[in-house]
Amino acid sequence: MGEFELIDRYFKRPARRHPLGVGDDCALLGLAPGMQLAVSCDMLVEGRHFLATVDPRKLGHKSLAVNLSDLAACGVEPLAFVLALALPQADDAWLEPFSRGLLALADQHGCELVGGDTTRGPLNICVTVFGQVPPGQALLRSGAREGDDIYVSGTLGDARLALEAFRGTVSLSGEVFDATRARLETPTPRVALGLALRGVASAAIDVSDGLAGDLGHILDQSRVGARLEVDLLPGLMAAPTGAVPHERRLECVLAGGDDYELLFTAAPAQAGAVAAAAAAGGVAVTRIGRIEAEPGLRIVDGGGRPVPHRYASFDHFA
Amino acid sequence: MGEFELIDRYFKRPARRHPLGVGDDCALLGLAPGMQLAVSCDMLVEGRHFLATVDPRKLGHKSLAVNLSDLAACGVEPLAFVLALALPQADDAWLEPFSRGLLALADQHGCELVGGDTTRGPLNICVTVFGQVPPGQALLRSGAREGDDIYVSGTLGDARLALEAFRGTVSLSGEVFDATRARLETPTPRVALGLALRGVASAAIDVSDGLAGDLGHILDQSRVGARLEVDLLPGLMAAPTGAVPHERRLECVLAGGDDYELLFTAAPAQAGAVAAAAAAGGVAVTRIGRIEAEPGLRIVDGGGRPVPHRYASFDHFA
Repeated sequence: MGEFELIDRYFKRPARRHPLGVGDDCALLGLAPGMQLAVSCDMLVEGRHFLATVDPRKLGHKSLAVNLSDLAACGVEPLAFVLALALPQADDAWLEPFSRGLLALADQHGCELVGGDTTRGPLNICVTVFGQVPPGQALLRSGAREGDDIYVSGTLGDARLALEAFRGTVSLSGEVFDATRARLETPTPRVALGLALRGVASAAIDVSDGLAGDLGHILDQSRVGARLEVDLLPGLMAAPTGAVPHERRLECVLAGGDDYELLFTAAPAQAGAVAAAAAAGGVAVTRIGRIEAEPGLRIVDGGGRPVPHRYASFDHFA
Repeated sequence: MGEFELIDRYFKRPARRHPLGVGDDCALLGLAPGMQLAVSCDMLVEGRHFLATVDPRKLGHKSLAVNLSDLAACGVEPLAFVLALALPQADDAWLEPFSRGLLALADQHGCELVGGDTTRGPLNICVTVFGQVPPGQALLRSGAREGDDIYVSGTLGDARLALEAFRGTVSLSGEVFDATRARLETPTPRVALGLALRGVASAAIDVSDGLAGDLGHILDQSRVGARLEVDLLPGLMAAPTGAVPHERRLECVLAGGDDYELLFTAAPAQAGAVAAAAAAGGVAVTRIGRIEAEPGLRIVDGGGRPVPHRYASFDHFA
């Protein structure tokens, strides 16, 4: 199978929503009149973002999911994406399920594959995704204000727990392993929640590198600090409390990464609107703390006493 | 140096033309009212698209140049790009010149770096570039018509000759090697020519995989054939005729690849407009053949007699 046959067989579908898709030097996209274009890009490398043994269908899903999650974090409506793929060889047994998982998620979100590039090389998957948002309505990291509540969607830490089970540092029952593994391998981008939070949230980010570190990005860019209530945190994990020691649980929730939930802030007066957005987004949201004027991240227990911590964001080069 | 410091030090600059650049989940771009968005994406892998020994500054230039060349081929005005980078390590001695070469070319074209991703992994450079074009004015591969003239800009085959010199299959004098090496390592995207060809060319593509193969894409998508005049072809190479045997020369011109010149078609009545576009684009264009109704690519000598050939497009998986 040659390069062009590979593209035709697995990735070329008729352009639907957009004027020109796969098969020319550029793809052409039409935005709705007056909309801003939003762009995000993620590169996935074997051994760092996924295990060599992962089901290619799930990898196809995740490759787009992590990008849609970035759009969700900005309250952006997905439009289209391009895929660049370096492959050690053109292997039908990998390409068929990979493209199936990728395009199934794309179809769920009406997000069309419009172009890309294919080359031989160490396995590398790079997706760039495009969306549209009315000017001034994108959710940014820089909008958090003193007194805002801090919320997170869904559950946190289970993806990291699955990774630790793969690494052999924790042992999980079959049922718990299956559930946490699904969180690691097929995350759900919170696109509907992100759209519903336009005009409600003051700042937002998706939790990809870990709650503490990603909250740190909001704090840095908003020039504020935050207080997180540690008693609320272990309950964020879906895995049963007996499955993993308390300390490990807290670490997974605060610094696990790969969660692809939305972490956002909103003024207390928006509490009702946040609940409505959660209902519209089809996912629970939990209030976990409050924005404060004093810079830095403070984690406190139920009595307001500081809990020492050393949680930071995942860093590919640290 | 950590991931975020790396981004801050080498790639983050204040957003100028666009509302939001590096440092949030998405970048935000404003298109001029009524314009279509054009997108292209190229992934460069060590050992396939560049040699491990290449000057990182030139590699930075080339990483964006090959993408701008795709915009040029569609007659699109560059706006912005995102960069995804997998690096074996965070190395200042590589990142500083790489980012300098990349951003120097970006500045030349007013094409702003607005986002991207950085990870550890085998060296892989993936650029996705965005531009704008008035609806219906993009140059496509599918517009060639019987009787159109076929043109190519600049010179062809010298990049391939340099590659062969690196591989040791040809020997070049120092001066010829330097000139051909510049064509391989720092190609010039024909952006101004592409813009000037809007409304003039009937079809266009950039020559990245080889003249014969890339012309084949125009023929396939336009459902036509072509006749190329072989006597015109060897003269397209800049390297002096004594530097390389005739057969090798023809092969470099027809199937060399990595040229990043524009190959386009235009009705004979547009000959004057093509000359004006070439002047506006600051590059010579040469008429090399004619589109015919009969499918297939025929290469003929000065007497119209067919020359057997076996030239096809470069294929990463063939």
